[in-house]
Amino acid sequence: MTIFPGALYYRDAYRNWAQIFKIMSVLWLVLAMFMALPLVVLLVEKDPDAPAFGVSLFIVLGAALTTWLLTRRVSLQLKPWQMFVLTSASWASITGFASLPLILGAPQLSITNAVFESVSAITTTGSTILVGIEDLSDGLKLWRGIMQWMGGIGIIVMGIAILPFLKVGGMRLFHTESSDWSDKVMPRTGGIAKATLSIYVTMTLMAMLSYWLGGMDLLDAVVHGMTSLATGGFANSDASFGAYDDQPWILWMASLFMLSGALPFVLYIRFLRGYRSALWKDQQVRGLLGVLAIAIALLTFWRVMKGDSGLESLTHVTFNVISVVTTTGYASDDYTQWGALAIVAFFYLTFVGGCSGSTSGGMKIFRFQIAMLMLRDQLRYLIHANGVFSARYNQQPVTSDISRSVVAFSFFFFITIAVLALGLSVLGLDIVTALSGAATAVANVGPGLGDTIGPSGNFATLPDAAKWLLCIGMLMGRLEILTVVVLLTPMFWRR
Amino acid sequence: MTIFPGALYYRDAYRNWAQIFKIMSVLWLVLAMFMALPLVVLLVEKDPDAPAFGVSLFIVLGAALTTWLLTRRVSLQLKPWQMFVLTSASWASITGFASLPLILGAPQLSITNAVFESVSAITTTGSTILVGIEDLSDGLKLWRGIMQWMGGIGIIVMGIAILPFLKVGGMRLFHTESSDWSDKVMPRTGGIAKATLSIYVTMTLMAMLSYWLGGMDLLDAVVHGMTSLATGGFANSDASFGAYDDQPWILWMASLFMLSGALPFVLYIRFLRGYRSALWKDQQVRGLLGVLAIAIALLTFWRVMKGDSGLESLTHVTFNVISVVTTTGYASDDYTQWGALAIVAFFYLTFVGGCSGSTSGGMKIFRFQIAMLMLRDQLRYLIHANGVFSARYNQQPVTSDISRSVVAFSFFFFITIAVLALGLSVLGLDIVTALSGAATAVANVGPGLGDTIGPSGNFATLPDAAKWLLCIGMLMGRLEILTVVVLLTPMFWRR
Repeated sequence: MTIFPGALYYRDAYRNWAQIFKIMSVLWLVLAMFMALPLVVLLVEKDPDAPAFGVSLFIVLGAALTTWLLTRRVSLQLKPWQMFVLTSASWASITGFASLPLILGAPQLSITNAVFESVSAITTTGSTILVGIEDLSDGLKLWRGIMQWMGGIGIIVMGIAILPFLKVGGMRLFHTESSDWSDKVMPRTGGIAKATLSIYVTMTLMAMLSYWLGGMDLLDAVVHGMTSLATGGFANSDASFGAYDDQPWILWMASLFMLSGALPFVLYIRFLRGYRSALWKDQQVRGLLGVLAIAIALLTFWRVMKGDSGLESLTHVTFNVISVVTTTGYASDDYTQWGALAIVAFFYLTFVGGCSGSTSGGMKIFRFQIAMLMLRDQLRYLIHANGVFSARYNQQPVTSDISRSVVAFSFFFFITIAVLALGLSVLGLDIVTALSGAATAVANVGPGLGDTIGPSGNFATLPDAAKWLLCIGMLMGRLEILTVVVLLTPMFWRR
Repeated sequence: MTIFPGALYYRDAYRNWAQIFKIMSVLWLVLAMFMALPLVVLLVEKDPDAPAFGVSLFIVLGAALTTWLLTRRVSLQLKPWQMFVLTSASWASITGFASLPLILGAPQLSITNAVFESVSAITTTGSTILVGIEDLSDGLKLWRGIMQWMGGIGIIVMGIAILPFLKVGGMRLFHTESSDWSDKVMPRTGGIAKATLSIYVTMTLMAMLSYWLGGMDLLDAVVHGMTSLATGGFANSDASFGAYDDQPWILWMASLFMLSGALPFVLYIRFLRGYRSALWKDQQVRGLLGVLAIAIALLTFWRVMKGDSGLESLTHVTFNVISVVTTTGYASDDYTQWGALAIVAFFYLTFVGGCSGSTSGGMKIFRFQIAMLMLRDQLRYLIHANGVFSARYNQQPVTSDISRSVVAFSFFFFITIAVLALGLSVLGLDIVTALSGAATAVANVGPGLGDTIGPSGNFATLPDAAKWLLCIGMLMGRLEILTVVVLLTPMFWRR
């Protein structure tokens, strides 16, 4: 029976990897379709950049179709280890393909810069190495927005359907029927995915409309609408939303839409299905609003004490706090000029992040809440010595399984940032730039602190090696760290 | 039977608190005895500072004797909650009393400065607000050394006999017979305490002798001997050990004795009782040596790459790395001038700390090791889904009890530093000073980073409110955070 065990082994390996590539080919196809949009704009505008997008589209389409043809006969039945590989490989390959127009086209970026820009885009981080964004072609501005928008929907789907299944970082808490990939993958997940997509599209259109009504020209409204909902943070100006710093309507609308992007999208679905209190009753949403309220109150009070106007302070504090906490990364002002407290506060806020199952990054509110529950239990334990404590979160018991995952995630999150910052300091970056740069990358926020990468700075002048380190950080952060770390263990490949 | 329940309640409350004060009165008595030493020196030298010490001694002695007389009839039988109160109250009261000579005597410090100096001394932190230390009276130099030395033995005893019993921060791992205070307090603990004290005294004398042979004058040798073993870090010069920066013998001896102070003292006892491999086989000791080796190798390599002399770099890197990791806080050089990597590396090293049951502070090596074991288990769990993993540490199983305590400690440690740093930033301190100042206080290290509180700086110029915040940080750090946090919960007082 086992005459050629070797041959069987290779057939199995081939089938396993073919399954992974088959799914990736579909994702690349979607990417190619999205590339067509800026291409059309460029062709209509007779922009000399059109060929660059045409060639890029051709390459991606070619890769997708070739891969699909080679793997089309393989039936899909993914095991957990394949999901780990698939997740990392698809994000990495898509960022690679998405950078092509930036290399071939007008800004003719170096590979390092192009990959940095596309990784920053698709992970919805929003750090940029481009200077003179106002002068980019319309097609490229659109492409930057589309990359973030794709990344945004990608992460929602991943958060709802993949990560809970992989039990990464305590996301098991959000395990629902729709996360069940074990047997019949698509049918049940399909419904949720379709509903999520409709809501995402609708809210993006609403954001675009609001911005357009607020006075932005069409392209700016379109791009900013996409990068707001994606909590991405790319803007069409070097000054980011500083370009609208005297237009409160736009700043408040942007605050609203960034916040909308940072709430759990499944709750919108429940809300629309008639469960009207879904959003307000959710512990994670309440936690996020609580953190925002405290931070906004503190910093507004601080600015008013320093003699700034109350209403203007409230507007800008709200905008920038929501921008950082939702991990969007727009800036309407150089908030590092607001004094020592503001710098430390924004450094802390960099870590927080929005809700799980949204487009935002960071550690995420629920992990802080689970950690708080653990600490409360621990104090009880010190005082009462014996006694069983069972914390609950959103009516669900917090099993030791979940709390251990949350703890492991938190540790890995900090370790990743610490290692990255050490690497950046080897390259000569000062401690504030190194620490805030590592944190803003891993949390997918966008701006760091300090003169170079602060809210009024730019990542262009960093050494190339630093940009690559930050790319790794952005991807690891976006994939909830452990998804990537697992791949780096010999244990995983020995399995 | 219960005609006067109120009266009974008050009698119980009185007895409970009387027990606490009875023990404290003994500690104060010890403090008074130690105050006699600098007093004698000052009297012999006919120093005008003598009366200040005389009055201080009189006050402390008076407080001790009065308290003892009032409580002498109460029999001791401490419950856990009393241990919590006793621990915090005795450290707080002793630092208060110990600051008296600094207020009444020659430098005539403000209350803030005097308390900062004595808290920094007794918690063996080693941050100073004194400028012109060379010109202080011999008595005062000696007093600074004695305060640290007392704090050092205090923390060893606490780590061996009290904290494991209170189950704080995973120290249950080090629960031995000698930690059993439940029934008969003194007899068994007595043996260990006596052995520990002898070892501490002997090693201090060896350090003093080495320094004296190395060329220090007698007073410097005595004070530095005490502050080395206590991993305290006070020196008799504004330049700290920069005063000996061209005397490798002294720097290497100091490195050796700082390291000796950071090892678990129970292991010395075991070693002396014939178990010769006690030190080398201990996982915590190996971990500490490993961390030191890596940090020293990295930074020496870094300095040599930058063109510094190999041997000199090795000497200074070793000295300063050991100083920070053991939480001593001497500096032989302004290591923040060694470049960006050194600053970030020393910032990280500030958190590490030495071994449990030693004089050093910080998070402590075993907590990192337990955390690593947890993370390894978590990766296994992601890969193998089911399966039971049982980590062991020093041949003992790491129960979920212990790992939860370690996690809670780590979170509280970071939260304490974060809150403290936010407070410091409100007072106008820049982010590097605020973060490193909070960290160096809570970890009981000594120097921070930046121009103000860096290794060549001084805490004198900080605002008074910042000094008080740092005092709270130093005390909380020294008492392993949770011991203090527990007292701040309503739950504790409702018990």
